[in-house]
Formats: sequence, structure tokens, C-alpha cells
Amino acid sequence: MQSSQALKWLSEEYFDLNGFHVDVLEKPPTPLEFSRLVHISRPVLIKGDPVGFKAAPNPGLWTDEYLAETMGSRSISVAVTPNGRADAITTGPDEKLYFAEPCVESMTMSDLLAKLSDHKRGSSENSETYYLQSQNGNLYSSRFFEGMDDPSEFEPLRRGVPSEISWCSQALDRTPDAVNIWIGDEKSVTSIHSDPYENVYTVIRGEKHFTLLPPTEGWCLKERTYPHATYVRNIDTCQLRLEPSPKEVAPVRWSSVADPQLPGSLSDKAHPIHVVVKSGETLYLPAGWWHHVQQSGKTIALNYWYDIEMRGMAWVLLSFLRNVKEVPSGNEDDMDTKDQENTID
Amino acid sequence: MQSSQALKWLSEEYFDLNGFHVDVLEKPPTPLEFSRLVHISRPVLIKGDPVGFKAAPNPGLWTDEYLAETMGSRSISVAVTPNGRADAITTGPDEKLYFAEPCVESMTMSDLLAKLSDHKRGSSENSETYYLQSQNGNLYSSRFFEGMDDPSEFEPLRRGVPSEISWCSQALDRTPDAVNIWIGDEKSVTSIHSDPYENVYTVIRGEKHFTLLPPTEGWCLKERTYPHATYVRNIDTCQLRLEPSPKEVAPVRWSSVADPQLPGSLSDKAHPIHVVVKSGETLYLPAGWWHHVQQSGKTIALNYWYDIEMRGMAWVLLSFLRNVKEVPSGNEDDMDTKDQENTID
Ligand SMILES: O=C(O)CCC(=O)C(=O)O
Ligand SMILES: O=C(O)CCC(=O)C(=O)O
Repeated sequence: MQSSQALKWLSEEYFDLNGFHVDVLEKPPTPLEFSRLVHISRPVLIKGDPVGFKAAPNPGLWTDEYLAETMGSRSISVAVTPNGRADAITTGPDEKLYFAEPCVESMTMSDLLAKLSDHKRGSSENSETYYLQSQNGNLYSSRFFEGMDDPSEFEPLRRGVPSEISWCSQALDRTPDAVNIWIGDEKSVTSIHSDPYENVYTVIRGEKHFTLLPPTEGWCLKERTYPHATYVRNIDTCQLRLEPSPKEVAPVRWSSVADPQLPGSLSDKAHPIHVVVKSGETLYLPAGWWHHVQQSGKTIALNYWYDIEMRGMAWVLLSFLRNVKEVPSGNEDDMDTKDQENTID
Repeated sequence: MQSSQALKWLSEEYFDLNGFHVDVLEKPPTPLEFSRLVHISRPVLIKGDPVGFKAAPNPGLWTDEYLAETMGSRSISVAVTPNGRADAITTGPDEKLYFAEPCVESMTMSDLLAKLSDHKRGSSENSETYYLQSQNGNLYSSRFFEGMDDPSEFEPLRRGVPSEISWCSQALDRTPDAVNIWIGDEKSVTSIHSDPYENVYTVIRGEKHFTLLPPTEGWCLKERTYPHATYVRNIDTCQLRLEPSPKEVAPVRWSSVADPQLPGSLSDKAHPIHVVVKSGETLYLPAGWWHHVQQSGKTIALNYWYDIEMRGMAWVLLSFLRNVKEVPSGNEDDMDTKDQENTID
């Protein structure tokens, strides 16, 4: 059996046994129930304030006014792109494909909220897109749990946000590695990727649209390696342009599927699952699951990343799925041919 | 990557991350702790009456006298072989290799206990071996938990044996599929195999010696297929002889490694773990782990088999490890050559 056949076998077997099923819980699980769910490692939609918010059990409390007032004149780091596609594959000035990181700009919370509102009032398709997506433990990082100094741009919001989710910390027997706040609108898209974290993702305002694939279907996403680039703002023209990084920066491995929802962009062997997470709802997104994320309207969310259990078989299987095949370059002239070779239908 | 390389990669990666580690718990786990251990799926040795015995918290209570008296004249099914190797690969009258099932004979508990004692008094190496190993839920089967009639040869012993282990049933959210009693001595060996069950194995008297390999190292056990045969007793000579089963009986897939403890019988890529389970101790043996089992002296044990969780990735990986390569016949003339081909060093 070749590795492509092995991957195909695993994904078919996995789908046959698990299908499209997403459990829906009407109330938060107990630590024991969640421990069982982590073992099964399937997405679960959870209702009923599973995070246990302090200041904002009622999502209505997280108004623009609350955020702007609480945060005041503090500066926060916001990702800016010409097209809403931060951390995604983009054509560069030289017509080559790049993995593009956003330009990170400082502004106040009310600046950000105004940018997002602008859009609703009908800005042009080509206007710049702002997305608070710093995802570096912007609310709490592991330093916080280690009792070390853990400065946060969002310090004033902490009093409304529990630093951990008790049923999750108990089930996993650990504290979060990072807790993040995300604020954006429908112009922002998070391109499909997977993380080595158990992720508890809760929506406070708006709606998140997740397209999910199990770890076994990663091969359908045709990963490639791309040179790294970053959007920078030209001081004179004030325009964003994509700047390829020096050769020393390692190329980035990323899916070449820009939008898994676009008809025809996935093999018919892939079984994407669509989950809409509404305000007040929480998604358990198991480690290694592929996710493409969009939002409708101004959307505020929090997520808790917990390190995956490295002991046992789960991590070994995720590594296998990731490493069994070589990842070709995304910029070969013969990419289409390579693509064929790397397709395992 | 060929399937043999895939198997080798998985077993090396698994060993690098997990090593030889066996957790030892000084007292029974809570349901939540056990749920985490099941997710990790590594063997764990547990002390301190984890089963919660009713009649026999003190192993001293399970004396020969207690057993003989409690069971009286009831007949029980005992496996008899000429060599102590029930369910193992054995050369048949035609010099071919067979998977040999034992002759099952009826006797009373005191008959059995006397046979086992006989050995201690120094019977010949070639005398027949008796092992109570019916393993069909001989104490409790799933019928019991479904509220159906569940006759047991060991009904009188039930009052001393809990039908389930509460921390285990709670962790797995299910009742056992089978609860078995095992009574034997050092003449009996259980050849290496794996089961699709979470197994909680507790020793009441004597000592069990387990040699364990993780599911990822199954390829080191060189499975082959063997025709089926059963020991039958000749009415005239009273001797046991191995009777090949009719062609309709499917061949059995089994490890061709007779004794993994024999130097040289395993690839140096295998990392066997030796665990001695003493009276009063319990082994959690995770689903899919390979085990070869022996005992020293007259040994009484109980085990609880719980169905494995079929949802998620764990079962899929076990199937992959089992099915990624074809299993050749164990009786080809060219077995040695085939052996080479199927070795992945
Ligand atoms: O909300 C998003 O845009 C992306 C979230 C995400 O990728 C994550 O939580 O891992
Ligand atoms: O105790 C023995 O001889 C074998 C036990 C066994 O194979 C099991 O519990 O699965």
C-alpha cells in the first residue's frame, strides 16, 4: 500500500464510522463528559453559557459602547489586509504565490469598531479589512497561569472573561495555553488550517461559520509550501503592498484550497461539515481538525486553546497524517501535474 | 512510503513519545482520572482493591476450600491441552502448523483445584494442563446487564464479585461486555494476541506475568494465517490429539511468535513491557495492546472487558495497524522468504 492509499483508507474508514455527526449539548458538559468527548475527538456544539462569563453572561452586555468605554485610549494590535485574507495564500507582485501575513497596526478599540461599522454602511469591495485576530494569548497567555507577569492589550476586558473553563481544565488536567479575543466582520476570512490544540470557541456577538474537515481528510486540502510575505504600508502612498520576506524566513506549509465551500474545490472524498455558532453558543473544535472560518456581521468571539495530550496514540496519528507524504512547492510551473500525482482518488 | 515503512514510522514515533512508561496508582482512579487514562491508552497498574470486592476484599478469602465449598458439585468447563498452550500455534499430526483450541472438559471446582495442586507436587513435564479460561463472560455476560437471563457456571461465586467496576463503567459510560474468572498455574501460557476491549484485569491469588506490546508494534509479531484445529480426547486411549477442523472453518490469523520473551524472537524494533500483577493488584490493559500472559503458582484472576469506543480516531487507527498489510499463510514452504519480505527492518 502506498502512502496515498493509506491516507485514503484512513479517511474512508473514519467517515464510515463517524459520518457527519456533530453532537449538540443543551448545557455545558461535566468534566467527565467532556473528557469522554475529547477522547472521541469530534466537534460538539454547546449551548447555555458553557464558559461561565462573569461580566457578560448576557451577550447583550458586549456592546460597542461597553467595549469602547472599557478599553478607552489603549492601543490594540489589529490585522489589516487589502482583501480580508490574513494568513492566506495570495499572489505577490511577481505573480508568485505567497503565504501572506497581515500588516499589524495599532489603533484604539473604538477605531476598530468604527472600521467594522463603516463596512455595514456599504464600503467598497476593495476597501481594507480590519480583523482583531492577534491569537497570541491576547487575553491570557500561559504566563498568566504560571503566575508570571502577563501583560495584555485587553487587560480591562479581563474582569468580564474567566481565565479558564472549569469543565475543560478539569477534563484535560491543565490550564489553557492561550485565551484570545477575536473581533471582525464578514469581510474577514480565516483560511483553512489545523492547530495542535483542543479549542473551545465561544461566540459573544454575531455568528461564526465554520467549515470543518476531520484530520483524516487533510490530504484533500492539497498542502503546498509557499514563500513567506507580509503586507506593509507604504508611507507615501498609504497603500498596503505585499513584501516577500528574506530568503532566511522558512517557507510555510499551507492548504492550496482557497475556499473549501467553492463547488469543485474539494475532492468528492472530502466530507466537510458546516457548523454555525451563534451568539451564546460554543464550539468544541478538537485538536487537528481543519477549519475555515467566516462571520456574518460584526462578530466578537473568545477562544480557549488547551495543549493537546501528547501521550498515547492521538498525537502520533496526527503526525502520521501530516508527515506520511512530502509536501510539494506551491509555485512549481508543473503544479498541475504534481497536483495529479498528489491526488489520491 | 510503503505500508511497511508506514508501520515502522508509527511504531518509532509512538515509542519516542511514550517509551516504556507504566503508571502505578496507589489507589483506584476516579471516573474522570480513568477517562483520561483511557484516552492516553497506556497500561496502568492499580493498587488498593480497585474492583471493590464484596466477599473477598482480603484475597486470603479465596482459598481452595472457599471455592470448592461454594461451587460444590456443579460442573465447570475447563480447557485441557497436552502442553498448556490453548489458543496457540501448534504442529499437527501432519507436521503442518495449526491454531489449536483446547479440549473443553467438565469437572467440579475441586477436581480442577486438585489438578492444579498435583502439578505443585511435581507432576511430569508432559502431563496434561488444565486452565479455567472460558472467557465467554463466565461470571457475567452482557445479557446480565440487559436484564436478561444470564446463567453462569460460577453463579455461586457471583455474590463475592461485583458485576462491574464503578469508576470504569462511569468513565466509559457503559457496562462490561463480559466478566471472567481465570484459574490456572504456571503450566498454562496465553499466547500473544490483542483484543478490541478495554480490559481491567485483577489478580486475587498468585501472580500474573504480562508481556505487553503497544498496538503500533503489532507488525513485530509477524501474524500469519493458520488452519483451525481442536484437541479431542480419544475414548479408547484417553489421550488428547489435535484434530484439524473441516475446511469450512475459517483459518485463524495469529502471531507466529511463540514466546516473545525468548531472546531473538522479536525484532529489535519491538519494545516489550513486562508487568507483574500480584495478588490484590489490577492492570488496566488498553484495547488493542498485545499481551502474552503467564502465571506463577496457582493463580486466580478476574477480568472485566468493556467494549472499545468505536467513535473517533482510536478504532480507525487500530484497524489501520491491523489491515495495512496482507497476512501471509503460516504454512507456506517458503515461509522464511515471505518472512523476510514482511519484515520491515
Ligand atoms: O475565528 C477565526 O477567524 C479563526 C479561529 C481559529 O482559527 C481558531 O480558533 O483556531
Ligand atoms: O490471563 C490470561 O491467561 C489471559 C488474559 C487475557 O488474554 C485477557 O484478559 O485478555
